[in-house]
Order: sequence, then C-alpha cells, then structure tokens
Amino acid sequence: MRMRNKPWAMDYLNEHKQLVVTNPHEYKGKWNELLNRDVLHLEIGSGKGDYWSKMAGLYPNIGWIGFEKDKNVSVIAIKKVLDSYTDNMKFVVHDAKDLTELFADHEVDTIHLNFSDPWPKNRTAKRRLTHSDFLENYKRVLKVNGQLIMKTDNKILFEYSLIEFQNNGWEMIEVSVDFRREPHPEDVCTEYETKFMELGQPIYRAVWRIKEVK
Amino acid sequence: MRMRNKPWAMDYLNEHKQLVVTNPHEYKGKWNELLNRDVLHLEIGSGKGDYWSKMAGLYPNIGWIGFEKDKNVSVIAIKKVLDSYTDNMKFVVHDAKDLTELFADHEVDTIHLNFSDPWPKNRTAKRRLTHSDFLENYKRVLKVNGQLIMKTDNKILFEYSLIEFQNNGWEMIEVSVDFRREPHPEDVCTEYETKFMELGQPIYRAVWRIKEVK
Repeated sequence: MRMRNKPWAMDYLNEHKQLVVTNPHEYKGKWNELLNRDVLHLEIGSGKGDYWSKMAGLYPNIGWIGFEKDKNVSVIAIKKVLDSYTDNMKFVVHDAKDLTELFADHEVDTIHLNFSDPWPKNRTAKRRLTHSDFLENYKRVLKVNGQLIMKTDNKILFEYSLIEFQNNGWEMIEVSVDFRREPHPEDVCTEYETKFMELGQPIYRAVWRIKEVK
Repeated sequence: MRMRNKPWAMDYLNEHKQLVVTNPHEYKGKWNELLNRDVLHLEIGSGKGDYWSKMAGLYPNIGWIGFEKDKNVSVIAIKKVLDSYTDNMKFVVHDAKDLTELFADHEVDTIHLNFSDPWPKNRTAKRRLTHSDFLENYKRVLKVNGQLIMKTDNKILFEYSLIEFQNNGWEMIEVSVDFRREPHPEDVCTEYETKFMELGQPIYRAVWRIKEVK
C-alpha cells in the first residue's frame, strides 16, 4: 500500500524507540533476548500493523516483530498501538531485501506474509515477497523446522507463490483456497481481511517449511 | 456420479465394440496402434463423456480414451456420440485401480482428471483418484515428460491433491485457483462445468509432470 509522504514520519519513528527498533542491525542474533521470549515470529510487510498487534495480544508468550519498509505506513501502525502495546512487540522499518543482515541464520521460528503487494505485472515479479530472491533469505533466517505462512486475496500472487516455493525447494504442509470457510480463531482476522470476505473474495493460505535435506 | 442400475447396460456396451473396447487387456502397449495416432490422451472418470468426446473433436490428431468404471454412466456416454464419433475415440469401462494392467509403462502422453468424485470423508480418501495409490499407477503409465491435468470445483479435493502430488514426487508446472477467469478455448468447457461457473464457483486446475530424477 503506498501512502502520501509524511515529512515527519522519520522523526516520529525515532521518538518511539520503546516500540520501533531503529538500530536493528545491533540485534542480529539477539531478538529473543530483546523480546524476552523463546519463540520469534516475524511478519514481513506489516502495513498498518493490525495483524502484528492483534496476534501479539493473542499469543503473549511469543515475540512478535512487525517489519515494514514504508515509513509513512509504519507511523500508522505505531500510533495505533501506543496506548496498548505489550512487551512482546517490536517494529522494524526496513527493506526485507536486507533480512539476513538483521537476523542471524536460523533465528526465526515463523515468518508471516499477509496480503503482500501482488506486483501483478511480470516485469515487477522480482518485487513480490515470494520471489525466489526473498525465499532464499527466508530460508537462511528460519529455523530448520521453521515455517512460513502466507495469506492473500490475490489469485495471481497465490498461484505464482505455489510454483515459486516448490521450485525453491520448500515443502508445502498446508494449503487452503478458502481459508475462512471455516472459523479459525487461532488466526486473527484483520479489518482488511474482513472486507475481502464481505465481498465474497476467498482468502488463500499456505504453509511451507524448508524441506529436509535427505 | 452414481446412477440407477441399468440391467441392459453390459449388453449395450458389448453391442458397441466400434467404440467400447471390451477386451482392453489385449491392447496394452498397442493403444496408439488401435487409434492410429501418435499421441495418447486418457481421461479417467469420464462420466457421461462430454469432455472426452468434445476434446476428441477439437484435437483430431490425438487418440482419446475415455475411462469410466460405472457401466450405467458409460452407456450414456456411448449413446451420446453414436451418431457423431470419430476414429480417434475409444471408451473403456474399467476400474482405474487396474490401470497398469491395461496400459504399458510410459504409454500415455497425458492423463486428464475432470471433476472427479471428491470422496470428502477422510475414511474414503483412498478412493480419490488423486490418492497416492493411484498416483503411483499414473507415474508408471505416463511417458517421462507426460503430464497429468486436473480440474475440479471441489476445494477439499483440490487442496488434498496439491499436497498429495507434492508428497508423491510430482512437479507442479501450472496452477490456477480460477481457471475460467480468462477464456481457454484450448480446453473444452462442458455443460457440467458451465453450471458451476454460473453459480460463481471457481474452477481449480493444476498440471503436474513426473519430476526428473537427478
């Protein structure tokens, strides 16, 4: 989602270091320590932060990092939770291209991709968060039995991702072409997602893990 | 699809040997010869035969075998085409469990599964035409670069199949969660399929090939 430029965004983020980690390189390999939790979940492309903050509330024993490259969207995520955040939440404003500079190998238990920008044109496929260049980074930072969970309303992105993960050597362990046809109280349904459901648009979801090398 | 028993069905099939191959074991390894074509497509679970007969019309240079275990449905397929069939069409009334007794190894170019019975209960999963027991047979009869093309309106069957093919060592080369969102004149759309589309039900489709052994 692209937002109008907010000239004050960077200052705002720097003023909220209790939530925004402005020096993320320094926590490489130390995120569990920072969050004081044993399990680390990372949402990439957190946007306005609804999934990140609500999941952190639902799973207080897990450390939750929201990750978003657009500072103009990130300030909205921070504003929303200023009065209610808990100590298992941190936010990082950074490009996911540099993921391996911020996270040590096998540091992350689960990566979440929710309603990522589909970049529908073929010539922009490299920007999709499920392009093989990104998948290689996810492989490195995920634990050996770590998982990546993707949800999207976008058919083209979903179809593309099913092939891309397969060809990049991941094992799909769950897949749904209409995830919300049954209740899933274990997974927060954001307002954004609810809108799609009200339009009758199915939510696609898949879970992959790195294939064991035999 | 289950039909009322027709006591005359077997006699009817035996009376139409120009179309119905009643001694299929004898053509193992010789189907291309029988059909006088170089390329062999096999639809498993042909039901009333609409896809089989229309695809045979659309692709006259390909030999098309309709395969259906239920004799009561098969007679409908035969009746429909009696006045219009071409010499690239044959029909076999047999259980797909015995596929490897009727087809030689690597004899088939393409297998089609269209709207197969979903057998939605877990305890009947073994009857699904995409259960790994069947996939093993498909692997044997398909050529090295042969393909299996599946279409269905059933979410559970599609999700199940995506995992089952993966775990059985197939490579998915195409996938669509809404195949008819764009026109596909290369693939016949049967009345049965049109009904689902009119109800707004997406058609799921995937194409697999046997993964090359490296």
